[in-house]
Amino acid sequence: MITKDEYIFGIRAVIEAIESGKDIDKVLIKKDLKSELAAELFAKMKEYSIVGQRVPVDRINRITKKNHQGVVAILSAITFASLDNVVPELYEKGETPLVVILDGITDVRNFGAIARTCECAGVNAIVISERNSAGVNGDAVKTSAGALLHIPVCREKSALNAVKYLKDSGFQIVGATEKGAVNFTKIDYTVPTAIVMGAEDVGISVDILKICDSYAAIPQFGHISSLNVSVAAGILIYEAVRQRIANNN
Amino acid sequence: MITKDEYIFGIRAVIEAIESGKDIDKVLIKKDLKSELAAELFAKMKEYSIVGQRVPVDRINRITKKNHQGVVAILSAITFASLDNVVPELYEKGETPLVVILDGITDVRNFGAIARTCECAGVNAIVISERNSAGVNGDAVKTSAGALLHIPVCREKSALNAVKYLKDSGFQIVGATEKGAVNFTKIDYTVPTAIVMGAEDVGISVDILKICDSYAAIPQFGHISSLNVSVAAGILIYEAVRQRIANNN
Repeated sequence: MITKDEYIFGIRAVIEAIESGKDIDKVLIKKDLKSELAAELFAKMKEYSIVGQRVPVDRINRITKKNHQGVVAILSAITFASLDNVVPELYEKGETPLVVILDGITDVRNFGAIARTCECAGVNAIVISERNSAGVNGDAVKTSAGALLHIPVCREKSALNAVKYLKDSGFQIVGATEKGAVNFTKIDYTVPTAIVMGAEDVGISVDILKICDSYAAIPQFGHISSLNVSVAAGILIYEAVRQRIANNN
Repeated sequence: MITKDEYIFGIRAVIEAIESGKDIDKVLIKKDLKSELAAELFAKMKEYSIVGQRVPVDRINRITKKNHQGVVAILSAITFASLDNVVPELYEKGETPLVVILDGITDVRNFGAIARTCECAGVNAIVISERNSAGVNGDAVKTSAGALLHIPVCREKSALNAVKYLKDSGFQIVGATEKGAVNFTKIDYTVPTAIVMGAEDVGISVDILKICDSYAAIPQFGHISSLNVSVAAGILIYEAVRQRIANNN
């Protein structure tokens, strides 16, 4: 199992890695980096929607002592899939797809834990967005207990676009939210379904909430009323599994 | 919210804390400590079933620079309840109790996460054993999002005794295990129920497995077949909630 991060150093090398289609988690860039070659890198990153992060040079020096020229790319621990490919495949197989969309879940432990549950439950794909997601790095693979190496992860330009695409492809969109919601068990998950999980603090973003077909609330009876997002995901996903098994018997 | 650990130092002070009934998570004892007074402490710890742990003196020095005499007691972050009191109270209230027993869950994050779910779901009590449990310390309270301050935690001599006591009190005992198990949704949770969750690596201990009334398996369809224990607990607990809500409508 790959749980150590892999890196590419140097401006030219990173440009080539991007052009060759390597899956890059993000590029760390020395705070004050500015040059013609750097400008070329930034243009390439923009073209391929690669996330960049300005950091003090010490951060990069801790990763390598080689001549990094102020630039290091962290490779993704997995190869990403694309909804464009995954969805038609699922329909061709005659499956009733179940997809989980993560909207703004940046905590790597929660991301890994949800991926683990998805893989165990037979969820067909996980969707994350290019920005505002947890890094898909060695840590994520480790917390997922290796699940991330077995389940398609689609990293789409935005979660909103992914939701629209799935809606257009015949999925019902179920948002996990307390806002104007019904008990999660009242929703029928035996049709093609995408479950959207939002960030622990702010929940699902407003634009996505607007286009959800239903709102799944998990009833809570205590004082704290705050389920962990990975536990909440597990509860919703296994309700879908329960209904699908019952439906087939 | 208390999320910092509190300590008591010095042999005589710790003996007095034990006698006065303070809830102590455990006592750290300098590796080679040996004296008449220490012997008195050890006898007192045995009498009150207080867990001790031999550590290098550096570990204690990092906690305090005061004259600790090689002994520091870590106070529990909560006041423990007792099944003896909790169970009759529940029956008196006319509730159908739901209790979760943790058998050998030593990871503080999993313990905190399960406590959080239990509090949200309205579980009536969590049972842990004196030994082979996660510390009920500031970290646990923090990971539980404060839930541990709101839900009774019964720290019993052994998980096996607790299971026997609950069985004698009319609870059905449901063990979460893949061994000889039925789909977890086939079990009726609308009667007084104790759900037993085992350690992630070895599962529920053999003695407890033997006396479970049923074995709840969560179906898994992937390659890794290893749900996180706190996610699994959430799935089982909310199946009980689902059935109880359906039963009341």
